[in-house]
Amino acid sequence: MTSAAFDVLGIGNAIVDVISHADDAFLGRHGLVKGSMMLIDEARAESLYADMGPGVEISGGSCGNTMAGVASFGGRGAYVGKVRDDQLGAVFGHDLTATGVSFETPRATSGPSTARCLILVTPDAQRTMNTYLGACTGLGPDDIDVERVAAAEVTYVEGYLWDAPAAKQAVLKAFDAAHAAGRKVSITLSDSFCVHRYRTEFRDLIRSKVDILFGNESEIKALYEVDTFEAAMEATRKEAKIAALTRSEKGSVVVKGSETYAVPAAPVARVVDTTGAGDLYAAGFLFGFTHGKPLAECARLGGIAAAEVISHVGARPEQALKTLI
Amino acid sequence: MTSAAFDVLGIGNAIVDVISHADDAFLGRHGLVKGSMMLIDEARAESLYADMGPGVEISGGSCGNTMAGVASFGGRGAYVGKVRDDQLGAVFGHDLTATGVSFETPRATSGPSTARCLILVTPDAQRTMNTYLGACTGLGPDDIDVERVAAAEVTYVEGYLWDAPAAKQAVLKAFDAAHAAGRKVSITLSDSFCVHRYRTEFRDLIRSKVDILFGNESEIKALYEVDTFEAAMEATRKEAKIAALTRSEKGSVVVKGSETYAVPAAPVARVVDTTGAGDLYAAGFLFGFTHGKPLAECARLGGIAAAEVISHVGARPEQALKTLI
Repeated sequence: MTSAAFDVLGIGNAIVDVISHADDAFLGRHGLVKGSMMLIDEARAESLYADMGPGVEISGGSCGNTMAGVASFGGRGAYVGKVRDDQLGAVFGHDLTATGVSFETPRATSGPSTARCLILVTPDAQRTMNTYLGACTGLGPDDIDVERVAAAEVTYVEGYLWDAPAAKQAVLKAFDAAHAAGRKVSITLSDSFCVHRYRTEFRDLIRSKVDILFGNESEIKALYEVDTFEAAMEATRKEAKIAALTRSEKGSVVVKGSETYAVPAAPVARVVDTTGAGDLYAAGFLFGFTHGKPLAECARLGGIAAAEVISHVGARPEQALKTLI
Repeated sequence: MTSAAFDVLGIGNAIVDVISHADDAFLGRHGLVKGSMMLIDEARAESLYADMGPGVEISGGSCGNTMAGVASFGGRGAYVGKVRDDQLGAVFGHDLTATGVSFETPRATSGPSTARCLILVTPDAQRTMNTYLGACTGLGPDDIDVERVAAAEVTYVEGYLWDAPAAKQAVLKAFDAAHAAGRKVSITLSDSFCVHRYRTEFRDLIRSKVDILFGNESEIKALYEVDTFEAAMEATRKEAKIAALTRSEKGSVVVKGSETYAVPAAPVARVVDTTGAGDLYAAGFLFGFTHGKPLAECARLGGIAAAEVISHVGARPEQALKTLI
């Protein structure tokens, strides 16, 4: 195995966030479930956008946020995701490469426009996400360069990819390429509704291929269809090689076989917008992991990154994370 | 004179801001003058953008910010400005109408793309602006609906419009329509470099047509080519009917004939980004003016709006301004 050119190669839905403030009544009027991610079609995206308040556009996408976080720690990252050759696609590409992440996936030259996620932040700092996948639906196995995958210490993917028709095949191709090169692969469960949609496939994948699993409390409870965190954690322990389980203000727990590491959350003066908390936790964890840190330290780095991102609006770090460690 | 349907009708360059952080070395490397607005062509916009850090896209444009501010106070506003039928044009239109401002200017269906302003915020909270005018260059007299102008108590324009070839003719058409309907007209000097470019025209216009002039200390010093605020203020007093002159942390001074009202700045806990300070001052002032407030109260409202906008990144209010008065 040659030395890795990248610490982490991420594969995800390439999305520009449109962040706006809304109250609970707005969510109710539009039938939105607070804290969740809902897939919407273009017509619904247009009508919801028309009713939303003024927005701020920031490059996002769960895995894109994670890769920006890895780079912010000083890590070497590469990203695979599909945008169109439109203005928001240019914004997404600029912002990711400006963080130092290598992004070479060809843009679509026809078909749906670059994906948008309409994010409504309520006064309780919760975010409710409405994703129009757009150009992301064009991501497929041809976008996976096996040499780039082989050059990354960890290949990391988001469960959300299962919502894009051909992306799953891209993920499986990448996982095989990574393992063939002696590298590790990792997945985040993304969202409890996503777990409900793909539970069987995710469980099969975790048993058969995944080296590092990320999930929050509601996601692993949904995955194993149990009611308590402890039961979900024990079920995860049996099936995953390494699992990093996040619990919001209760911090995170890492399990690996019989080993358990519980790490408290990093302090936050004021929670402004929880968008990106899980994404940035994964960034810190993977940065630590690819730099040879023990699992508890990986979890601590994840907590630091999550604390930074929830203290402001937007899902990517505003401060250089390397200055916080 | 019938009662006004709009408090303020604004005409401006319709621009989406791309806000990024930069240090002084970046400004030096690119030959940028801190605190100023520089016009750039598309090629320069591309190369500067490529070298900038990750950005946040927020609808802007000096007059657009002012109109969003008027609406945030609860005022009735209309806006005239030119975007293209592209994604950033849609963002601009959405954000302005979502604040409650009426915006009906037809979008360009060909020609340059929607204008962008690449804004670099330095650690001292100063902003350095680089504007690619794009579709704004298509604004002309045909975009002025004289009935809408006649329906607005004040027509307000930005000096920056003089940089767009046909916009000046649009302004003059609007000013004549406003005065024919017994309404008032107002202009902001926008920027000291802008004043240097159009000094003679601005002075002629102030003497012949303008009812309310907005300018900051450096702009009025540039306008009358004098070295002190006091000399500039006295020169302004002689030529302008009403002038609202801003002085950053020193507050503002309103002069009208022999009357002078000096109003201190509203307190700000921490200045984060001065972008939009002058725009929001004008918003507060014009909201007060069109609601029959005395001039000193208009200035106080301007100060409150300016204080809100400099306490966060971005040039439009995050809090509803009507809740602050």
